[in-house]
Amino acid sequence: MARNFDVIAMGNAIVDVIAPVDDAFLLTHKIAKGVMTLIDEFRANQLYNAFEERREAAGGSAANTMAGLASLGARGIFVGKVKSDRLGESFSESMRDIGVRFATAPATDGPSTACCLIAVADDGQRSMSTYLGASRELGAADIKVAEIAAADILYIEGYLWDTDSAKAASRKAIEIAKEAGTKIAFTLSDPFCVGRYREEFLELLENDLDILFANEEEAKALFEVETFDEVLQRIESWNGIAALTRSAKGCVVANGGEVHVIDAAPVARVVDTTGAGDAFAAGFLFGLVRGKDLGDSGRLGVLAAAEIISHYGARPEVSLEVLAGEAGLV
Amino acid sequence: MARNFDVIAMGNAIVDVIAPVDDAFLLTHKIAKGVMTLIDEFRANQLYNAFEERREAAGGSAANTMAGLASLGARGIFVGKVKSDRLGESFSESMRDIGVRFATAPATDGPSTACCLIAVADDGQRSMSTYLGASRELGAADIKVAEIAAADILYIEGYLWDTDSAKAASRKAIEIAKEAGTKIAFTLSDPFCVGRYREEFLELLENDLDILFANEEEAKALFEVETFDEVLQRIESWNGIAALTRSAKGCVVANGGEVHVIDAAPVARVVDTTGAGDAFAAGFLFGLVRGKDLGDSGRLGVLAAAEIISHYGARPEVSLEVLAGEAGLV
Repeated sequence: MARNFDVIAMGNAIVDVIAPVDDAFLLTHKIAKGVMTLIDEFRANQLYNAFEERREAAGGSAANTMAGLASLGARGIFVGKVKSDRLGESFSESMRDIGVRFATAPATDGPSTACCLIAVADDGQRSMSTYLGASRELGAADIKVAEIAAADILYIEGYLWDTDSAKAASRKAIEIAKEAGTKIAFTLSDPFCVGRYREEFLELLENDLDILFANEEEAKALFEVETFDEVLQRIESWNGIAALTRSAKGCVVANGGEVHVIDAAPVARVVDTTGAGDAFAAGFLFGLVRGKDLGDSGRLGVLAAAEIISHYGARPEVSLEVLAGEAGLV
Repeated sequence: MARNFDVIAMGNAIVDVIAPVDDAFLLTHKIAKGVMTLIDEFRANQLYNAFEERREAAGGSAANTMAGLASLGARGIFVGKVKSDRLGESFSESMRDIGVRFATAPATDGPSTACCLIAVADDGQRSMSTYLGASRELGAADIKVAEIAAADILYIEGYLWDTDSAKAASRKAIEIAKEAGTKIAFTLSDPFCVGRYREEFLELLENDLDILFANEEEAKALFEVETFDEVLQRIESWNGIAALTRSAKGCVVANGGEVHVIDAAPVARVVDTTGAGDAFAAGFLFGLVRGKDLGDSGRLGVLAAAEIISHYGARPEVSLEVLAGEAGLV
């Protein structure tokens, strides 16, 4: 079958509600800084009302990555569940606008479209409170063999493990990808998410994944080690491509004995780190599907991340394809 | 022959004259910030008199490394040339005091003992103006087969290439080490030093060295590349152990496909970076001679460097052996 798509991504379909806050706000509202916490609809409404200067934007980790890939000129498919409500329509429209195929049938009843209340602190760190809502309804029936077989890479976010049906959908997609020769990439998503599903993620790593994305804290949590170098020693013995992000320290890319240490791309001012990892994944995956070596793929990753953290919001504001061209990477 | 010594080091025998300065001083006195410049006796006297609050201490890159090794409990020999004058006696005494064997015969006439005028700026960066004096007189006659054969590792500083006779002595020592099965370690010393002898250093790397020490700028100069990752790709294909230091970014240790990325050890306040690389080499060499793996050797390196930069002066003020014990590294 022809590979008409570069990447097919599965993730929670979420609309972000972003607001600048100070640390006092985080304390008052009992928000854990720097991580993602799952919340229920009641708390979602409460925080939504507490947010001042809020902005809405289509989000979701893997969906953001697809936005980055689209901005680089890649052809993508997104699989995720919204409800047929105002936020759901807004999410779908955002995918269509950037040219990402999004054909998952929306839920017609049940909980409303997911939202993520993102509190961005003065230092650019973001704390996320996520109401999963309709995104939990993603199921095995939403996985289409033809879509997965049509892509070079299947990209799955670890957050999907928070819902049994979405996890089942992911496992089905993985089996299809193996049959079809579609490479399987996975992001650990969040250190707490790793804490919740550590054993399952380790089994995925061992049996299913070709490409792993993790930031330093997630990778430490996965291997239960204290230092980055211990992570690296563990991952060097793994038979796959690992892209490990380290915030201001850039990234380390390893594929067995081939290791790249890549500095972060310069940013005039870090405004909001929301989506940095998603953008990195976009740049890195773009490098891989375009046949770049691991070093240049990593450099595409840090370049995309630098664009995202220079402004509010988790999706690119300028063409990543143009930026990559200026940097001599495409 | 029994290996009664861990490391034998060859380097310029220098007494440091250290003074805090501001950037205006560097401009006024035409001192290039952050590097080592060779000066003549006239300029040495001029700068010496311009320095206020000056302190004298035995120095020299490789000699500092031996001081670090002694502080870790290793057994070392230093080979270098002083004159039998006040500074020369002070240098010899400092070696004896810390238990490093130093039996190179002092020059009885000719130029006086070498000194290095170290201007330490507000940001901790040091600029070195070196009058090589008697240290240039080191020659092949000073190299003793038995001393080199008695050590596990021969450690040579690249600065020796600045003098033909010291370079000849180094080459003789390298040949003896190869015969005796003593491992050969080399430090690139300074980016300008690399610029002066790039081709020769590349030949050494290819034909003679087992262990290479370089900071990021030196390594970039050696391979004439722009980024750290390019250095790493070049060094990963080299058949030896490379310890690459990156200032606040820690170090990367590579031995073919085995790569370690090690963060800098925490320092409450960086006071003076003089000797950071020398101390790193001490910690790393100590790890190697004690049979530690490359990761722990690198961690010993960054630990020693952190001690040195937390105070003025290039030699440890507290026992590195105790620090390494507290860190669980010995």
